[in-house]
Amino acid sequence: MESGESTEETQLRREETKGSYSFDDQRGWRRWRVLQPGRGMYYDVKRRLPYYLSDITDAFTYRTIASTIRMYFVNLLPAIAYTLDMYRRTGEFFGINEALFASALAAIVFSLLGAQPLTIVGVTGLISLFNFTIYDIIAEYDVTIYPQFMAWTGIWAAIFHWLVSVLNACDYMRYVTDFSSESFGMYVGIIYIIKGVEELVNEFTEEGAAAGYLACIIAILYFGSVYGLEKLGSGTAWNPTLRGFLADYAYVFTTLFWVGFSHIPGTLKSTHVTRVPVTAAFYPTQSRSWLIDFWNLDVKWVFVALPFGFLVMLLFYYDHNVSSITAQARHYPLKKPGGFHWDFFLLGCTTFVAGILGLPMPNGLVPQAPVHTDSLTVYKTDLRIIPTSRASDGVEAGEIRRPIVRAEAVVEQRVTHFLMGLLLIGTMTGPLLTVLHTMPAAVFAGVFFVVGWGSIESNGILQKFLFLNAEERFIQRDEPLLRVPRRKISLYISLQMFGVLACVAVSHTIAAIGFPVLILLLMPLRILLMPRWFTLRELQVMDDFTADSKVVLESLGGKPVLPEHRRLNEDDWGLERKRSEQQRGVPRQRAGSLHR
Amino acid sequence: MESGESTEETQLRREETKGSYSFDDQRGWRRWRVLQPGRGMYYDVKRRLPYYLSDITDAFTYRTIASTIRMYFVNLLPAIAYTLDMYRRTGEFFGINEALFASALAAIVFSLLGAQPLTIVGVTGLISLFNFTIYDIIAEYDVTIYPQFMAWTGIWAAIFHWLVSVLNACDYMRYVTDFSSESFGMYVGIIYIIKGVEELVNEFTEEGAAAGYLACIIAILYFGSVYGLEKLGSGTAWNPTLRGFLADYAYVFTTLFWVGFSHIPGTLKSTHVTRVPVTAAFYPTQSRSWLIDFWNLDVKWVFVALPFGFLVMLLFYYDHNVSSITAQARHYPLKKPGGFHWDFFLLGCTTFVAGILGLPMPNGLVPQAPVHTDSLTVYKTDLRIIPTSRASDGVEAGEIRRPIVRAEAVVEQRVTHFLMGLLLIGTMTGPLLTVLHTMPAAVFAGVFFVVGWGSIESNGILQKFLFLNAEERFIQRDEPLLRVPRRKISLYISLQMFGVLACVAVSHTIAAIGFPVLILLLMPLRILLMPRWFTLRELQVMDDFTADSKVVLESLGGKPVLPEHRRLNEDDWGLERKRSEQQRGVPRQRAGSLHR
Repeated sequence: MESGESTEETQLRREETKGSYSFDDQRGWRRWRVLQPGRGMYYDVKRRLPYYLSDITDAFTYRTIASTIRMYFVNLLPAIAYTLDMYRRTGEFFGINEALFASALAAIVFSLLGAQPLTIVGVTGLISLFNFTIYDIIAEYDVTIYPQFMAWTGIWAAIFHWLVSVLNACDYMRYVTDFSSESFGMYVGIIYIIKGVEELVNEFTEEGAAAGYLACIIAILYFGSVYGLEKLGSGTAWNPTLRGFLADYAYVFTTLFWVGFSHIPGTLKSTHVTRVPVTAAFYPTQSRSWLIDFWNLDVKWVFVALPFGFLVMLLFYYDHNVSSITAQARHYPLKKPGGFHWDFFLLGCTTFVAGILGLPMPNGLVPQAPVHTDSLTVYKTDLRIIPTSRASDGVEAGEIRRPIVRAEAVVEQRVTHFLMGLLLIGTMTGPLLTVLHTMPAAVFAGVFFVVGWGSIESNGILQKFLFLNAEERFIQRDEPLLRVPRRKISLYISLQMFGVLACVAVSHTIAAIGFPVLILLLMPLRILLMPRWFTLRELQVMDDFTADSKVVLESLGGKPVLPEHRRLNEDDWGLERKRSEQQRGVPRQRAGSLHR
Repeated sequence: MESGESTEETQLRREETKGSYSFDDQRGWRRWRVLQPGRGMYYDVKRRLPYYLSDITDAFTYRTIASTIRMYFVNLLPAIAYTLDMYRRTGEFFGINEALFASALAAIVFSLLGAQPLTIVGVTGLISLFNFTIYDIIAEYDVTIYPQFMAWTGIWAAIFHWLVSVLNACDYMRYVTDFSSESFGMYVGIIYIIKGVEELVNEFTEEGAAAGYLACIIAILYFGSVYGLEKLGSGTAWNPTLRGFLADYAYVFTTLFWVGFSHIPGTLKSTHVTRVPVTAAFYPTQSRSWLIDFWNLDVKWVFVALPFGFLVMLLFYYDHNVSSITAQARHYPLKKPGGFHWDFFLLGCTTFVAGILGLPMPNGLVPQAPVHTDSLTVYKTDLRIIPTSRASDGVEAGEIRRPIVRAEAVVEQRVTHFLMGLLLIGTMTGPLLTVLHTMPAAVFAGVFFVVGWGSIESNGILQKFLFLNAEERFIQRDEPLLRVPRRKISLYISLQMFGVLACVAVSHTIAAIGFPVLILLLMPLRILLMPRWFTLRELQVMDDFTADSKVVLESLGGKPVLPEHRRLNEDDWGLERKRSEQQRGVPRQRAGSLHR
């Protein structure tokens, strides 16, 4: 088995020489990234283009169908959920039609032209937060210029995207560690749950107490249904096929059921819960042409939009790239290489188009992107038999049987992403918009809870917190966290939670658009300051580079090397996560969970 | 360790000779139970009386306080819940004052005079079912005679109780196996959950949609809160003291919280949910004197009440004795002996008093009686270390650590039961009745769900069903059910579920009062017919005698012996349960769970 691994590694190294890209081995002026513009994008295309045909031919398998349906729901439902919120809070400028258009645009562009077709791009909660915070700011001056101002924000953001991708700046994403990406996941989870609660509060104010209570019931039970079905799907009941089926369609069944439930004639039907507001198909929500007259904006405002555009770029720089990285995480046995620079350039293009058409700007979906890879992964549940001896209290256990989930292969292709895009375009038509209109807003509060809690439950911060609260003697002795002093673990997650809570607090003020800066500040905190407070050994147990997969690092300029790392074996990082994978196998990606 | 056990056994055998009682070793006419009237009761008193002083002195420990508070809630809340239902369905004859009076009467009598002070006696859901079914029957003729008719039902029931106890007929309870007691537990669980739903439906019809929905939310979240706290309490978080605290007061915290929640000013407060209806303190709900004028009943009706009284006795024969047996189950390390005949005689007395005072007749609480013993048990969570070898897939696990819960001792005394009785009397006073009136009925729907689901979740029927649905290769090899053919397990639980569903169906018709006959019919089915369809070995794996503790069997005439059992080792029964206890330790008794 070990010899098999090493042949695989040699093979990978051979491939690396073909399309690999790095600045670490360059000398003189060539060491400077900005002095070799377009190098990253060039290598991205060169590395990825040979796989284009196989990206289509590889798709002829059942998993493609299951994945398309699952991703359609996992992408569409949260997008609508955020839009409900955005719609109310931007003077009804961004509506369902805009959200669908943006999602479809992103899906078609990235599935056809993207270097990483696994990364689902769409409308996120954070761009919704951005849009309505800008609305609040603009409303203090002159609310009528909001469309033009947003267009210029998009244009500037696009320009910064193109600069970043041309100047190879995506490389710095390889320094992202779980320290900041876990914090980001926790932040996103908390924001989503708050959004869910706000959705329910809105039901009370809009439709009164009865509708509000019913919405709470639907949201709670929707959450319970998806959660329960996914738990069943990842258990050991029945057989692997049936379990896989449940895991694939948990969202579909649950959504159909609870939408139907809200329409049962009698008390339920006559309690008017709010439903998704729709307008005429293919037209913007407000009466305007799709193209925003962005040329009709005072030059002063054009330049005010510049820092906003920069902040959008910062958000996407972190958000989009982290979602790409997690969609290509190490525990998925991916064979095809990535291309971060090229994709970020493309993202600039969709940002530009979204800006001038007055759409919410799409980007990589943090909790959902890895779900796409998961839905395309062929899992095998193996049986691990652990022979045991007589226990400490004299009981003979014989042997212990455990299910170990192994990711066997991933159907790497771009067809699912494309089909999902077509489905989204289909949803923009009249008949399907009518179907959307039957959905109660309460279901989306449930979606918020599922996605938000998924991002929190599996989060390393919560896991370390649970470790600290467990009674010490029942912890398995091979748990790597036992090698770290408890107060160091507390300090570590306190730093994370400090960042999270700062972001959450800021998100509820007019300074919300500044939160990408806060998230990005966690990276220098981790790289520059934290090595003074923690030993390298401690950090190796608790932290890991988020970009850990070979296919990812090929595009990001190779493995990150900091001076202090040279001293130790590079495979010694992420001990806690590795141990968890060894003990329980690869975790199936639940709808909301980030990374592990 | 083994030598320690055997000294304990010798000690027990010595005690047995002192107060033990059996008909198995008698010859000639003495073999007939009816020919030695009062023999069981005589031995019960003789066996138990020497412990009376220690029943008081043993109580000076913290567990007494925790147990009193917990049992006050676990006894009172369901009693009120059933009463809400009974109140509506008996023309408001049985109200809160009657239920409190009956509970207090039973608690004082059984704590002072009972041979088994651990068995909590109070108002159950089944007597509520009985009472309103009789009401429905009487209402077809002349509803005004309901009080007198119920009084005569009680008088006849009391007479049959006294006959049964004097003629030593409780002995037959030793033949009860888990086959019927699990079915009974499942039946009770299902009925309780239905009652909870009915309580919520009532909220819709009484107070409209908004109140109905709010009631649903409170009930669901009440259930979730108790369930979550009890799960935390039986986990491995923090330390044993804190966990024990959670387990002890889960009901208290949850009830206080959700009652308070329903009073939050604003939308919640202005949504008028129904609250517990109370009347003047110490007076009957209807304007009558406490003593029913039972002498003013047509003789015809007096004799019509006879079969009804007989059915009440049948119900209590099974229900009360099973709750006593489970409150003294083998996994509690009890030292003091039981006394079934004497207690059943006492139960006749309380039935008589309840009958002539127009109270709901109290009897042993099936899901709650073992909670009392549990609340008095000192648990220790031990650490079991299982050394392991290299697993089948080459992974080295080192060792596996598991928590094993061990019941160390039980604070056997009668003070908690008595104090709980005093608290119930206190609750009958004006000020505390006012407190009761602040409680929303929705909380009681939540109580129904907790108690009902507790009785279902731990039920052997559900456990076997889950076994049948698990993927075979992940089942631990030492699972005894693997030795039974799958279709035999299916047949076994199908027979149980047939009995359960027949009872549930009957409970919703006017024939509801006949269900004790159905439950009792499961006993001959098990003893006489099932050995033809199952091998003895199969039954030994799946079934066990419910009365398995030595202290119980001393009063029931010794271990039950059927001809076919002689062939096998008597300790070979209940293999499945024994294995579960060995692997996981003694389960803490959750609020509703029956037996294991």
